[in-house]
Amino acid sequence: MKEFFKWKELPGRIPKKGVTMKVLSGEKGMMVLFDIDPHVEIEAHSHPHEQMGTVLEGEIILKIGQKEKVLKAGDCYVAPSNTLHGARTGERGAHVLDFFSPPREDYK
Amino acid sequence: MKEFFKWKELPGRIPKKGVTMKVLSGEKGMMVLFDIDPHVEIEAHSHPHEQMGTVLEGEIILKIGQKEKVLKAGDCYVAPSNTLHGARTGERGAHVLDFFSPPREDYK
Repeated sequence: MKEFFKWKELPGRIPKKGVTMKVLSGEKGMMVLFDIDPHVEIEAHSHPHEQMGTVLEGEIILKIGQKEKVLKAGDCYVAPSNTLHGARTGERGAHVLDFFSPPREDYK
Repeated sequence: MKEFFKWKELPGRIPKKGVTMKVLSGEKGMMVLFDIDPHVEIEAHSHPHEQMGTVLEGEIILKIGQKEKVLKAGDCYVAPSNTLHGARTGERGAHVLDFFSPPREDYK
């Protein structure tokens, strides 16, 4: 297995309009770098994978369960397994680094 | 469980001189933000937890197994379970965001 990577060299995928994602998967966890344009909505969804992440740049409005919060660079979060969560961006868009445990098969 | 956090408000710990770490743990994974001073060596070690991460700022020389590489912001890596890995910083120090899966009990 390869050990070292550069985000800029990893292939990007567009899971929906306005969102580009890059995936680095291990056996037990998966990192996903999301680049989200302004004014994009990611509808509420849930999955058995635990999701935690950090906002690297920009601003995102994240809802986890019944709680919603505006997150900026340096803010972080945990969406437990099977918990509804969704997000939307405002004027700025966002770069977000997420970590899924276990890896999401649908992202491999 | 709380969902939203700010790295700057999380308590810092000093696992060794020149290293400050902040921990956000879930049930399945754990994020750890490391702030490493210049000229610090983290000796080679291994653990059953898979470790993946991204350099956010600065520069770190990371060795995973027999491969060593200088990593800068935007570079990322995977250290598989039970694989020896170590690191050192040069002139600049580094901010590194790591993910452990499962969470490290010794960091909780």
